[in-house]
Amino acid sequence: MNNDNSLCTLILAALTSGWLAGANAAPVISRLTPPSELFASGQSDPVVARFLPGQRFDLQATIRPDAAGKSIIQADFAIDGQKLPLRVAYKTCDSGCVAGMPANATIATLRAVSVTAPGRHTLTLTATQNDGQTVTARGNFEVVPLTTGGRKVKNIIIMLGDGMGASQRTAARIVGGGYAQGKTIRPLAMDSFPVTGMVKTASLNSVVTDSSPGMTSYVSGNKNNNNEEGVFPDDTVDPFDNPRIEYLSEYLHRTQGKALGLVTTADVFDATPAGNAVHTSNRGAGTGIVDQFFDDRGLTGLTVLMGGGRKWFLPSSMPGSARSEKNGYAFSASDAHTAEIVRRWGAAPGTRNPARDLLGEFQSAGFAYAPDKTALDRIDPTKTDRLLGLFALSNMNVALDKIAGRRDKARGATGSVVDDYGFPDQPMLDEMTDKALAVLARQPQGFVLMVEGASIDKQAHNMDTERWILETLEFDRAIRRVKDFAAQRGDTLVIVTADHECAGASLIGASRVTDARLQALVREGGGTTLRDKVVGVYEQAGFPKYRIAADGYPETTDIDYRLLVGYGANADRHEDYRTNDRPLQDSQQPFVKQTPLATYPASARERDLEGKLLLIGQVPGESAVHTATDIPLSAYGPGAWSFTGVQDNTDVFFKLVQATRGVVMPAGLFR
Amino acid sequence: MNNDNSLCTLILAALTSGWLAGANAAPVISRLTPPSELFASGQSDPVVARFLPGQRFDLQATIRPDAAGKSIIQADFAIDGQKLPLRVAYKTCDSGCVAGMPANATIATLRAVSVTAPGRHTLTLTATQNDGQTVTARGNFEVVPLTTGGRKVKNIIIMLGDGMGASQRTAARIVGGGYAQGKTIRPLAMDSFPVTGMVKTASLNSVVTDSSPGMTSYVSGNKNNNNEEGVFPDDTVDPFDNPRIEYLSEYLHRTQGKALGLVTTADVFDATPAGNAVHTSNRGAGTGIVDQFFDDRGLTGLTVLMGGGRKWFLPSSMPGSARSEKNGYAFSASDAHTAEIVRRWGAAPGTRNPARDLLGEFQSAGFAYAPDKTALDRIDPTKTDRLLGLFALSNMNVALDKIAGRRDKARGATGSVVDDYGFPDQPMLDEMTDKALAVLARQPQGFVLMVEGASIDKQAHNMDTERWILETLEFDRAIRRVKDFAAQRGDTLVIVTADHECAGASLIGASRVTDARLQALVREGGGTTLRDKVVGVYEQAGFPKYRIAADGYPETTDIDYRLLVGYGANADRHEDYRTNDRPLQDSQQPFVKQTPLATYPASARERDLEGKLLLIGQVPGESAVHTATDIPLSAYGPGAWSFTGVQDNTDVFFKLVQATRGVVMPAGLFR
Repeated sequence: MNNDNSLCTLILAALTSGWLAGANAAPVISRLTPPSELFASGQSDPVVARFLPGQRFDLQATIRPDAAGKSIIQADFAIDGQKLPLRVAYKTCDSGCVAGMPANATIATLRAVSVTAPGRHTLTLTATQNDGQTVTARGNFEVVPLTTGGRKVKNIIIMLGDGMGASQRTAARIVGGGYAQGKTIRPLAMDSFPVTGMVKTASLNSVVTDSSPGMTSYVSGNKNNNNEEGVFPDDTVDPFDNPRIEYLSEYLHRTQGKALGLVTTADVFDATPAGNAVHTSNRGAGTGIVDQFFDDRGLTGLTVLMGGGRKWFLPSSMPGSARSEKNGYAFSASDAHTAEIVRRWGAAPGTRNPARDLLGEFQSAGFAYAPDKTALDRIDPTKTDRLLGLFALSNMNVALDKIAGRRDKARGATGSVVDDYGFPDQPMLDEMTDKALAVLARQPQGFVLMVEGASIDKQAHNMDTERWILETLEFDRAIRRVKDFAAQRGDTLVIVTADHECAGASLIGASRVTDARLQALVREGGGTTLRDKVVGVYEQAGFPKYRIAADGYPETTDIDYRLLVGYGANADRHEDYRTNDRPLQDSQQPFVKQTPLATYPASARERDLEGKLLLIGQVPGESAVHTATDIPLSAYGPGAWSFTGVQDNTDVFFKLVQATRGVVMPAGLFR
Repeated sequence: MNNDNSLCTLILAALTSGWLAGANAAPVISRLTPPSELFASGQSDPVVARFLPGQRFDLQATIRPDAAGKSIIQADFAIDGQKLPLRVAYKTCDSGCVAGMPANATIATLRAVSVTAPGRHTLTLTATQNDGQTVTARGNFEVVPLTTGGRKVKNIIIMLGDGMGASQRTAARIVGGGYAQGKTIRPLAMDSFPVTGMVKTASLNSVVTDSSPGMTSYVSGNKNNNNEEGVFPDDTVDPFDNPRIEYLSEYLHRTQGKALGLVTTADVFDATPAGNAVHTSNRGAGTGIVDQFFDDRGLTGLTVLMGGGRKWFLPSSMPGSARSEKNGYAFSASDAHTAEIVRRWGAAPGTRNPARDLLGEFQSAGFAYAPDKTALDRIDPTKTDRLLGLFALSNMNVALDKIAGRRDKARGATGSVVDDYGFPDQPMLDEMTDKALAVLARQPQGFVLMVEGASIDKQAHNMDTERWILETLEFDRAIRRVKDFAAQRGDTLVIVTADHECAGASLIGASRVTDARLQALVREGGGTTLRDKVVGVYEQAGFPKYRIAADGYPETTDIDYRLLVGYGANADRHEDYRTNDRPLQDSQQPFVKQTPLATYPASARERDLEGKLLLIGQVPGESAVHTATDIPLSAYGPGAWSFTGVQDNTDVFFKLVQATRGVVMPAGLFR
């Protein structure tokens, strides 16, 4: 999958800048990787690709001969003018390339190279056509120096609130923390971190990222295209053969022996967890993604994996399995283009096998397995080195529904109004995080742990206000556990951040009426009259007062004078300002046990029809979208100071690794 | 003006907590100032009112006798149980109180008290009724300690982007700075500040602030009600008699001799500039506000005042004047309630005089006066200690229109398409800032300068995307000048912040079509079809590329594949995705010289009708509204580090003053 509109830009830049040798009848280098558009067009800032000293990455070029009968017979990569003495792998486009690529186009690749000398480097690719013509393209990249000295951080914890912008944080604080006379009563855990920064979230090909590059920027130091993870874009259709970039997990496992833990409320194949350990240009290739989690655990150090997504781990013969040949991965040993991935990276060759029992393989490899909260509670972390938890077939239920289910159970209610998609015993994120920390704390060389509050994003897409607010509260409870862990140890750096904002969530005020009156107004079916009577702005909003139960969540979200949220990146929706009794259909769920799927609304337009208030979306489609807005980052622990200021998401990677090498005070920052 | 819904809360809390002595037939203390709701209700965190050691503030209570024939004969204020040996001023509500207040209610006030001992203090008010019954209420406040030692900051500069949330900053960066392959090409000046924090913006009476408490929180250390400036709420109708809180300007002028400069693109009477120097519960009381700027310049140290708003300075007999008796201020010398403001604070008594020639008085007091850019340029800062610039009758024109006018003039165009409301020679904000810095730099004890990018907010209210983006760019150019000033001197602390976010601005993506195609689609009048064909999300957005002219602003904002913005706090609007040729009507403008007011659209619903795309608002009314979302703050210079983390807007005040006493590294922050 090559979702890549930068190609045209690159070609245009090349054609207008004289970057390409040979104007007409000459071969053309239509892509050079790592990408460096501005260098190619004669500008040197900013450098797009940056690596750590010794961090591994692939070089690649696509070269098109100037006529159908010709071919490319050689491609030489040079760094700073020095030709690299490595065997180049060639692939021709007679098969397996993207549409529009001529059959005699050649993709030349050098896998897993690295550069140790800090500074800017020039990459040169010279290709020779079979008629002796040559063509040269130049790009650049930078190696970012690490300093030494100072305390070394042993553990890194990345708390990734998917879609959690400033509004999502503020909303959670108002609902969960409460305000009185303008001041917060109970601060969120994330608000108590001493350092904050702002993060620019653009991906390689858009100001608006999706979750894949949103995550991988933090843990590879490089921009990826939307929908791609740990790879640069290429011109082939194979989603697993793209030029790779070594991940934080891989780099720190290889150089420092650290382990990797991934905890999410989403399906574990989802972009955010996968974007820490799996290299693919198709975030949707579930079978291959989970296979690579397991197959390459020796590269990434993966020892804890928890979330939903059991459907990928079950053999295709089992009910609920979603494994398919089509989205698996397997590298040909006879084709150097992919064989070099295995040889140079030490990656597994993979196998396209829908019948694979991945659950069994994880267990055989020593992973304790928890299918539900009860089993998770039983796991003794003092005797557990490796842990797999798969608590739903796809995405886990959201906090609002999990909590409602627990409350129903606690009071002995039988017919719960809340459906659980067939998984009634799912843990909360803080419970998963606690267990992950206990297991990972046994790692002698430390660990990298990524914990994702996944459905902040998913429910913001649905414009389901109460569900994403409670997701944010659930996420904050996990943050509190992580902060306590770090406070006790003193050797752990924690960042709380997001990949991007979702839905343009906007805290517009609060309801001017009681919930009873609101329901009456809805029944009266007032359209914009409903809006005009309910929506209180400025001082009409006051301070919405949610009562927090002992379980840490609001007793009810249908309070009088409730918080109200608008959406600037909204698709069409009906609005009645009340908590939706069911979430929208989750298209990722392969089957639903208790309730027919049809009883879940298919979209926000099909929901809340009674109030007759249709808010036409500002974006097309059925779902609110991500926005390009900077997001806040909070940091705690040694090296936290380095995350203040406005920074690119790729900067975070270098700061995290620096902390493992030694935390030093900056000379210029604090004058 | 008492826009105060916290009163009910206070009474309720009192009734339910036993805070009030006497349950039924007994006098009631219905308000105690400074406010401390949670203390009254039995909770001790958070403390609402906080002051510096020695910072002055007023104590006040409203006491209602228990029957019509009775009266309050005495009120004693005590701090930490010690009765204050000061004369209490009494006012009865036979006149001048808000509706619903009984005629025999008494307002007891102690003006300009201060406490030097750091820590939490208890305020007790004991009132005696003429039948001997007494009633007691307790509140609290905190005195925040200052530390000494370290370098002292001489100058403080507050760059206040009104309505500038994270989205507004990001949008300005995309348009003005450009992105390539995910990275910023030319960073904004505000992005280059080394430290960022997040700021909680709630006011005393709402999660959604307006600009008045949004500003005053930063410069008084205390929450104010919406629409109120430098005062706590009270129960009288006089907008100038409320309990005061000493401003940053007043405190630093009194204790350190610093001067005050105020520069804005708005009318200078507007909430943000006034919220640095004027004490009023009615941000709309223009005549009294500008009078107080002048009359109390000895308290605030006001020496530079620039912006629009000339209409308030002209005698009512002059064309364009907006002075009126009704919104002036004058303190009765015979009524202790107001006389004590003059006696204890040293404030001017004021006069309600529409015929006052304030412009002349400023000049007589030694202020150089600039009515336009040409005159401003001519002012020699080496010979100027005091400067007044009033460049429009009300709000100044916005950057987009000012720049268009300058470009027209530069190429000799006669009939400008851009109207200037009769003021063709208005300076840009960076030009005003340059002059302010040059004049203020002569101050031997340093200065406090507040520079406001005012119409980021005003144009976001109008959902006029290009106008608020260019306002943000204009503001950033002023920030660059300020940063250069601070970098050269090393004794100046600069913060860039906002009072609140406005409009729920959401960067939803970019146009999928050229501008020519967009115009054609508009002419076809497609409604949601227009939206569906134009709005590109995720990787459809790519990187909008605006070309920046030599003057620092985009050559045109109607580029192909333009940036698109949605609004989550939107009122109804028609949308055609193109730059509006005229701004909306500015209701503050008293007259328009060149063009009849009717040629300006009255609202965003009356604009862009051709595309037939009506986006129903998520809020009532004609204007997008402020949101409750946290906003980013950037800091530069000595003491900048102290602004990282999530903080209340009132925290900023204490950090600013601390920097003038000595910048010290925090013990716990950077472990």
